[in-house]
Amino acid sequence: MTSKKLVNSVAGCADDALAGLVACNPNLHLLQGHRVALRSDLDSLKGRVALLSGGGSGHEPAHAGFIGKGMLTGVIAGAVFTSPAVGSILAAIRAVAQAGTVGTLLIVKNYTGDRLNFGLAREQARAEGIPVEMVVIGDDSAFTVLKKAGRRGLCGTVLIHKVAGALAEAGVGLEEITNRVSVVAKAMGIHGEAGVHRIKMATADKIVAIMLDHMTNSSNVSHVPVQSGSSVVLMVNNLGGLSFLELGIIADAAVRSLEGRGVKIARALVGTFMSALEMPGISLTLLLVDEPLLKLIDADTTASAWPNMAKVSVTGRTRIRAAPTEPLEAPDSTATGGTDSKQMVLVLERVCTTLLGLEEHLNALDRAAGDGDCGTTHSRAARAIQGWLKEGPPPASPAQLLSKLSLLLLEKMGGSSGALYGLFLTAAAQPLKAKTDLPAWSAAMDAGLEAMQKYGKAAPGDRTMLDSLWAAGQELQAWKSPGANLFQILTKAVKSAEAAAEATRNMEAGAGRASYISSGRLDQPDPGAVAAAAILRAILEALQGQGA
Amino acid sequence: MTSKKLVNSVAGCADDALAGLVACNPNLHLLQGHRVALRSDLDSLKGRVALLSGGGSGHEPAHAGFIGKGMLTGVIAGAVFTSPAVGSILAAIRAVAQAGTVGTLLIVKNYTGDRLNFGLAREQARAEGIPVEMVVIGDDSAFTVLKKAGRRGLCGTVLIHKVAGALAEAGVGLEEITNRVSVVAKAMGIHGEAGVHRIKMATADKIVAIMLDHMTNSSNVSHVPVQSGSSVVLMVNNLGGLSFLELGIIADAAVRSLEGRGVKIARALVGTFMSALEMPGISLTLLLVDEPLLKLIDADTTASAWPNMAKVSVTGRTRIRAAPTEPLEAPDSTATGGTDSKQMVLVLERVCTTLLGLEEHLNALDRAAGDGDCGTTHSRAARAIQGWLKEGPPPASPAQLLSKLSLLLLEKMGGSSGALYGLFLTAAAQPLKAKTDLPAWSAAMDAGLEAMQKYGKAAPGDRTMLDSLWAAGQELQAWKSPGANLFQILTKAVKSAEAAAEATRNMEAGAGRASYISSGRLDQPDPGAVAAAAILRAILEALQGQGA
Repeated sequence: MTSKKLVNSVAGCADDALAGLVACNPNLHLLQGHRVALRSDLDSLKGRVALLSGGGSGHEPAHAGFIGKGMLTGVIAGAVFTSPAVGSILAAIRAVAQAGTVGTLLIVKNYTGDRLNFGLAREQARAEGIPVEMVVIGDDSAFTVLKKAGRRGLCGTVLIHKVAGALAEAGVGLEEITNRVSVVAKAMGIHGEAGVHRIKMATADKIVAIMLDHMTNSSNVSHVPVQSGSSVVLMVNNLGGLSFLELGIIADAAVRSLEGRGVKIARALVGTFMSALEMPGISLTLLLVDEPLLKLIDADTTASAWPNMAKVSVTGRTRIRAAPTEPLEAPDSTATGGTDSKQMVLVLERVCTTLLGLEEHLNALDRAAGDGDCGTTHSRAARAIQGWLKEGPPPASPAQLLSKLSLLLLEKMGGSSGALYGLFLTAAAQPLKAKTDLPAWSAAMDAGLEAMQKYGKAAPGDRTMLDSLWAAGQELQAWKSPGANLFQILTKAVKSAEAAAEATRNMEAGAGRASYISSGRLDQPDPGAVAAAAILRAILEALQGQGA
Repeated sequence: MTSKKLVNSVAGCADDALAGLVACNPNLHLLQGHRVALRSDLDSLKGRVALLSGGGSGHEPAHAGFIGKGMLTGVIAGAVFTSPAVGSILAAIRAVAQAGTVGTLLIVKNYTGDRLNFGLAREQARAEGIPVEMVVIGDDSAFTVLKKAGRRGLCGTVLIHKVAGALAEAGVGLEEITNRVSVVAKAMGIHGEAGVHRIKMATADKIVAIMLDHMTNSSNVSHVPVQSGSSVVLMVNNLGGLSFLELGIIADAAVRSLEGRGVKIARALVGTFMSALEMPGISLTLLLVDEPLLKLIDADTTASAWPNMAKVSVTGRTRIRAAPTEPLEAPDSTATGGTDSKQMVLVLERVCTTLLGLEEHLNALDRAAGDGDCGTTHSRAARAIQGWLKEGPPPASPAQLLSKLSLLLLEKMGGSSGALYGLFLTAAAQPLKAKTDLPAWSAAMDAGLEAMQKYGKAAPGDRTMLDSLWAAGQELQAWKSPGANLFQILTKAVKSAEAAAEATRNMEAGAGRASYISSGRLDQPDPGAVAAAAILRAILEALQGQGA
């Protein structure tokens, strides 16, 4: 391992990792003087069969993550990628025997060192009179020709832990567990890919297809006899360094590929079960199952690394829920006539030409404090509105107009500005549903400002577009008074907004992108505030031009 | 993302990953036309509160892994590291409302895009008459000075999902869930480290101490008020790219550090909960808990990514089980007298000098087919035996002598040879416990050969030390006949072993390290077989020299 690992010492890393697992899991104990973890309720297992497994460290959560009621009784861990010590294996066998278990099954992956060391401990324990059996798991389907060394033991071993654990929990005897587990191990195969380094250009679909073809091909001596109509448990295992995003993509590809072959996926386990430190790759395991075997896979366990898996078939069910119905548009009593609608079109057109004319200026202001695209963003919004107006007349009521504009800006303007204007318009539309008089428009401004502050987390003085809008909103309170004058008050509001925009020149940014820049470097007004003030002036001038 | 990712297309990766998760988990449905996953038993939730969360993809298993009975009702996923679309959030809210839930709580992490988009969807849904509340989670303890943007929402959000989910499952109303969750969120803090790149030289202990100091320091405005006597839930979260080995080491360091501060760890969750693709780093989360809150954390859930966590306190229990007692040495009826013991010493000494004399020759043979250390390994064994003989007289019975030699070779010889000789001697010792006549010695040879074949997976003809030993064993069958002659038969056995060793010159390696070399390159005898034959000759000559 390189010095970049997050450890205390290379020599102690296997001990520390096991200690951490035991410290965080009250169901486990360490065996004094050995790199061995055992169920902490060992003394409740009198008369049952004990199951021990293990191997080199670096394959976490295997094997200690699979200790628990319904899975392993204990594990013996070696140093990283090194078989466990015979003395520790023997100590584990003695410990479970002395706790009153009636026999021990050693579940060993097919590696020479593991076979020899577990075998030796077994012979020594048997010489002491302890009944010990051993199954050697070789689930690897990678080699098409049988090698003397046999198939390697890989992630499928976890399924053997599960099956044996369920049997032991049910009180089944040593000989029967050994026999049944040996049969199950023959119905299993695995194929692993150490990431994309070997097959650089292939997609996830292609890699999964290659793996499944290989492991189910009957000319491969180590193939799994899976065919159309077969029922399987699928395991998609992260070898450690793959993102869970990629793992989901591989799982998706595996399910589609298997179901495309007519294979019924009874259960699917997706996660990190047996890793190789942080190797960026995956393995796929297939286990042929029938109903009795599936019951053992489904049996309860307290093992921390066994997934919270649904106990129903993966294949043969609906995976899509129909989209919800959209609510009918509420009848709007405020629909205005043709003249008002025309007026709204003229206001929007004036706003659009204003923003397009400011594009370069806003971008320049933004380059000092942001990413220089404020003008571009506002121009994009303007062009979207222009395009929309060309499609036909806008809705006849102000509430519906603001709601539609909100959706348009959300979709086309983009960025935080799009979301903030969308929020403003959605909230502002609500008070206009019932009335469209001046107090209602003032309330609309209040609602928009409130939503913008609430979700955007900016307050007046934070050097954002809120500064202009908030200043205008203060003036527009006057519309709530009886007999208020539209233009007089709106003109004051626009001037106040422009003054507020200019005042942002001296403000420290409290929100938005500019808040990442130190205040000393800001001596221009905020482009968002300038744009908002300009929009308000465009509205005023368009209305005045129309003599509203 | 780079082209090295295991995906089908970058554009589709968030969709594919969510589809894979839903495909493998029958508890989930996709919502048609949206990147939304919902509980498949949605229609059973009539009258309950719905819980929706979500955010950008790339943080798996968050958030879809936390959907299930007792946790989330559904999630809305954005593109990688991008907030989800408002339209999809709104569709999810409508879907759960149309299924008959009585209100929706949006659980949102404190990022501007998430706040705005969830906020917008909330405002739109409320305008449609759907009761929707929203809590914004900011659990980040990294910044010591309060920024306007507030604390970021990180892994602690998963604990909020759990608490809210348990309340919703219990039938609690929208307002009460919202209030209780807001209180819980204030009792939480997190600190993350993006691996060891920033603090290259520090140990895991040191990094954990820095993080815990920082997040509990009362001069940090975002600290968690944890002190001696506090009770906490600890989350140790893999940001994706760290090995589970390192995660265990960090967990061990965190438990020791917190308990050293007098903090009581009520529960510890160790795993990958909220990642950032495969970022090599961790985060630590602390949540102050009391008994009622702990009950909610402990409540059952079917969410696939919630760990199988023991529901008992981590702090305050024994973590070590005493080592097992070693069995008393069985009384041995075969203990020989002083003369025989002396003879065994002379045999062993002859074996040792023979092996030491062969060191260079064996290494040379091994260089052609293995790693050139066969002589060194055997010499190491010889020196270990010589040292042991100097410590005092060996055990007085052959069975005990072979057992002790087995342990000695296991410990000192090393490698597969040490394990194989250890196995041979352990097994061979058994038949000699009752008798030590010639038939018993022949049976001992049989038992040793059987064990060696069984666990070592080599057979005669595989070009290993077994070839010599097996040939000798065949001749030693004659010892089982009444009146068999010790020397006559042993001499035949030695000659047969030497012939077998020589014959390995023409064998293809079927096991052991030499099996990795093509047969064409092998034209020397196998060094292991040569050594075994030499050991047998040394035994013969020593016995003859003694006139046994």
